[in-house]
Amino acid sequence: MEAVKPYKKNFDYSYTLGAFPTFELLKARPEQVRAVYVHSTFTDRQALAQLCGAGHIPLLEGDRLIARLSEKENCFVVGVFEKYECVLEASLPHVVLVNPGNMGNLGTIIRTLTGFGIYDLAIIAPGADSFNPKTVRSSMGALFRIRHRYFESFAEYRRQYPKHELFTFMLDGERTLEAGSCPKPELFSLVFGNEAAGLDASFHNEGTSVFIPQTKDVDSLNLTIAVGIGAYLFMQGRIS
Amino acid sequence: MEAVKPYKKNFDYSYTLGAFPTFELLKARPEQVRAVYVHSTFTDRQALAQLCGAGHIPLLEGDRLIARLSEKENCFVVGVFEKYECVLEASLPHVVLVNPGNMGNLGTIIRTLTGFGIYDLAIIAPGADSFNPKTVRSSMGALFRIRHRYFESFAEYRRQYPKHELFTFMLDGERTLEAGSCPKPELFSLVFGNEAAGLDASFHNEGTSVFIPQTKDVDSLNLTIAVGIGAYLFMQGRIS
Repeated sequence: MEAVKPYKKNFDYSYTLGAFPTFELLKARPEQVRAVYVHSTFTDRQALAQLCGAGHIPLLEGDRLIARLSEKENCFVVGVFEKYECVLEASLPHVVLVNPGNMGNLGTIIRTLTGFGIYDLAIIAPGADSFNPKTVRSSMGALFRIRHRYFESFAEYRRQYPKHELFTFMLDGERTLEAGSCPKPELFSLVFGNEAAGLDASFHNEGTSVFIPQTKDVDSLNLTIAVGIGAYLFMQGRIS
Repeated sequence: MEAVKPYKKNFDYSYTLGAFPTFELLKARPEQVRAVYVHSTFTDRQALAQLCGAGHIPLLEGDRLIARLSEKENCFVVGVFEKYECVLEASLPHVVLVNPGNMGNLGTIIRTLTGFGIYDLAIIAPGADSFNPKTVRSSMGALFRIRHRYFESFAEYRRQYPKHELFTFMLDGERTLEAGSCPKPELFSLVFGNEAAGLDASFHNEGTSVFIPQTKDVDSLNLTIAVGIGAYLFMQGRIS
C-alpha cells in the first residue's frame, strides 16, 4: 500500500479526520475504505474493530500519520478511502449548487440535505471539492450517505435530468416562499447560486424563481441557511 | 490614541476586517467608531470618507496596521470600535443561545436573525465572544444591527424577561415543528443549546419543547440551520 500523504485534489483517495465521520464512512461506504488508522492513545476500539473486520479493512496504529494529516490536535481516527463516482437518482428530488466556493459550506449543506431527506446533489463546475477532508469533516461524514456528481454546466445537468420541476432561489425571485403555501411537486430540483454572486439573471428562464422573505438589513441570507430552509419546506411531510 | 493591537478578549475595543462590515459599523453604530484605516491601494474611498466625515471619525492610511490585524490578504479596510453594552428590548421576540461555542456559527446566526427580523439576542455564558473580529466578520457586520447581551445563567435571563413565551429546540421535543402549523405567539423566545450537546433535559420544564423533523441519517442539524429554520417559521408574516 502506498504511503498516505496530505490531501491534494488530484489524488485518487482522500480521508476522514475524526471518529464520527470515520464511522459514517465505514457504515455507508465500506467497500471504498483502504484502511483505518487509530492513535495509540485511542481506547474505544471495539466498534471500529468490528466494522473493519466485517469489511476486511486493515485497522492500523498510526500516530505519525495522524499527526501529519490532521491540523487539529484532537483527531484520533483517520479513515483512508478511494474516491468514487455517483449517478444521481432520476426519480428523486435533487439540489443543484451552481459553483459553490466554500468547502465548509458545502459540507454543512450536505449534512443538512441528509437531515431533510434529499440524497442527490448536483454540483455545477467549477465548485468546491467534495472529497477534500475539510468538506468531509464539515459534512460530519454525511457525504457518504448521499449521491453527488459534478456537471460541466447547468445545461448539461438539465439535459440528463429533464423531468425535474426547477425552483431557482433568487433575491428577485417571482414567487415568495411562504411556509404555509410552499409548492408540493413530486419531482423537483432546488437550484442555488454561489456564496458571493447568487444565480445570474439567465436563471429566470429556468422553472420558477423563488424568494425567501428577508429584511433589508442584510444583503442576502447565508447560502447554507437558504438551502436549509428550501430543503425543509419542500420536503415537508416526506421526511421519515 | 493608543496603538491598535491584534484582538484579545479583554480589550475594550475590537475591529472590523473588510469594507462591507466596516460600512455596516459606520451606518449602524457610528458613535462607537474610533477610527477607520484604509490600505494605500484602496481606491473606492468616497462613500467611506462621507460616512467618516459625518461622524467626525478619523479616516487614516494604515498598510502596516491592516497587515498586522488581518490574517487574510484581501483586507483593505479596518474599522476600530469601542465595545458597547446593549439592553434587550422587552417587547420584541428574542433568540437565546445557551453556551454557543463557535464564533463562525455565532456570526452566521446573527446575520440570519437580522435577515429574519429578530433583533434581540441573549447569550448564556460561557459563550463565544460576540466582539471577536471572527464573529464580526462572519456576521458580515450584522452584529451592529442587533442588540445582544450575555447572561450568567438561563434563570437570570428568565428573571429579567419573564413574559416571553419560551420554545426550546430539542431532539426529543414534544411538538413537531411543521411549516403549516407553527405557533404564532406575539412575544416569544426561541432557545437553542450549543453545537455539541444541545439543551439538557432540564429545559423540558421551560415552555414548549419543539423538534424540527429530520431523518435518522444525521445525529442532529447544524446549529445555524436549526436557528435559521426556527427564526424563519416564527417570523412568518412579520418580516418587512
